[in-house]
Amino acid sequence: MDSASVKVPPMKDLTIDNITENTIVINSQSSDQRLTYVMERLVTHLHDFARETRLSTDEWMAALNFLVKVGQISSDVRHEFILLSDILGLSLLVDAIDHPKPPASTEGSVLGPFHTHEAEDMKHGDSMSHDPQGEPCLVVCAIKDVKGNPIEGVKIDIWETDSTGHYDVQHAERDGPDGRCVMRSDKDGVFWFNAIVPVPYPIPHDGPVGQLLKLLKRHPWRPAHMHFMFEKPGWDHLITALYIRNDPYETSDAVFGVKQSLIVDFTSADAEIAKKYGVKEGTKFLKHDFVLVDEKETERLRDENALKALKALGRKIKLLNHLPVPDVD
Amino acid sequence: MDSASVKVPPMKDLTIDNITENTIVINSQSSDQRLTYVMERLVTHLHDFARETRLSTDEWMAALNFLVKVGQISSDVRHEFILLSDILGLSLLVDAIDHPKPPASTEGSVLGPFHTHEAEDMKHGDSMSHDPQGEPCLVVCAIKDVKGNPIEGVKIDIWETDSTGHYDVQHAERDGPDGRCVMRSDKDGVFWFNAIVPVPYPIPHDGPVGQLLKLLKRHPWRPAHMHFMFEKPGWDHLITALYIRNDPYETSDAVFGVKQSLIVDFTSADAEIAKKYGVKEGTKFLKHDFVLVDEKETERLRDENALKALKALGRKIKLLNHLPVPDVD
Repeated sequence: MDSASVKVPPMKDLTIDNITENTIVINSQSSDQRLTYVMERLVTHLHDFARETRLSTDEWMAALNFLVKVGQISSDVRHEFILLSDILGLSLLVDAIDHPKPPASTEGSVLGPFHTHEAEDMKHGDSMSHDPQGEPCLVVCAIKDVKGNPIEGVKIDIWETDSTGHYDVQHAERDGPDGRCVMRSDKDGVFWFNAIVPVPYPIPHDGPVGQLLKLLKRHPWRPAHMHFMFEKPGWDHLITALYIRNDPYETSDAVFGVKQSLIVDFTSADAEIAKKYGVKEGTKFLKHDFVLVDEKETERLRDENALKALKALGRKIKLLNHLPVPDVD
Repeated sequence: MDSASVKVPPMKDLTIDNITENTIVINSQSSDQRLTYVMERLVTHLHDFARETRLSTDEWMAALNFLVKVGQISSDVRHEFILLSDILGLSLLVDAIDHPKPPASTEGSVLGPFHTHEAEDMKHGDSMSHDPQGEPCLVVCAIKDVKGNPIEGVKIDIWETDSTGHYDVQHAERDGPDGRCVMRSDKDGVFWFNAIVPVPYPIPHDGPVGQLLKLLKRHPWRPAHMHFMFEKPGWDHLITALYIRNDPYETSDAVFGVKQSLIVDFTSADAEIAKKYGVKEGTKFLKHDFVLVDEKETERLRDENALKALKALGRKIKLLNHLPVPDVD
């Protein structure tokens, strides 16, 4: 690059007191207002963090080496930065910001690092788990809008661990996907499948995130749950999970995913249910309805919440493509 | 881990408004007060960043994928997280916090990602660069304390690029270290060596940090400089660099390292200098003195600055092993 194109103000003798404003200035040369705003807040918080802790060079180096390890253990089937975000409460927070839920709609939960794009399409009634050690269960669900109307043709991703608490991708010698599937809701909004009763399991703690949890004296356990993701054009993308009541980790989930409204009970299939769905009488049975929100309603609510929250923080902003940028007029 | 050992308060239904305090509580179970404080400030700033930007799920995912790439391009000879810290002004800030400089002492500058531990020990007068395309220069330095007394036996690390602006480790086919050395000051505090006149160069911009700079419309250039690191028990570890006056990037260093007091002039070796140091008359010549600070004085100044700064921020803290922790009595 030609030095003649350097247009930033002269920057020399940067100190504890002036480095932040200067970094913000040099980061403000693009015409992307959103990028400029996000970088301004990032640099401000990063620098304030260092100033408020008087971060030492040793601590800084330890943190950077930790982050290298988080990146290096990540792979196509393991996203350690998502895991780090999960245990720091950031994932829950971002989901709550981006997917506000009106009353009566299904709440969201954390995506976690184990969703993949290789799950097989299955028909209603198929078995998504082939683990013979798992306790079989029948799951019958319906998808509705907030007024109770069924929603047809929703693409549903479902995934859970095997009976040992491991997702398929955590087994090095696996043949292909298992414990996961994709299906679609019928004209009554219904989808149903056979699976195994979820078990509690520790998040992967053999890597840097596990070391951090240990340092913090935190356990790595998640209560038993089954993940669901719902997608249909016009409807707000819903990532959620159902949690089994009275799990020992119900109130101390390592990734903060549990919501009261997402805790469910398994019952037993009676004779009628068993006959209707072709399972043995007494099979564990879960019935649950999910309520999706219209995309426009989510957008309206998100905008409204953003403007209200930022006004409360005393920030003068406007929305550009539904995302805050400074309002400089 | 036994669920009976779960001692954190019940955490369910975490929201935008209560996730931060709950994450801080669960992170406060260790007896390490410093760790607890650092994590509290980290989580607070991370969450405030997301709340103030109303960070979207897409932006969050893009950021996490970016961080994975930063980790994955890192290696024994490339630390992309240091580079990221450098271009965000964090490296300069942490150095300024950790190594306060009394008047008359040599200021610090950024370490950068290219210091290695494989440089060869050299005697005074040796050539540290074997690049035939470089413009030869003679560098004669002395190390003193703030009262002007020479300091003997300081270990000095010196490193610079070749004439193309690349460090040795950036050449895949290199034989061993070049453009770097370690030497020690003599009883007069003196050390001297032959090198090449530094050239401006871009920081590595073929990776994720380079992509970020491009997005931000920032150039990746650093003004011509030579790195120095000084180590001797009892003296504050000094990481610094000397910058050549009138470099086109003098006022827009991509990593914020330039300080007025570190800008130097090359002259030409006259007949006397040439004879004394065994170089050709007219060889580029740099003479510079470095002033180290007593470790105790640095510690005292660091403590004083920390207490003053945190008081100004309205935080009630005390120092534990010279690092701030909340003062709860």
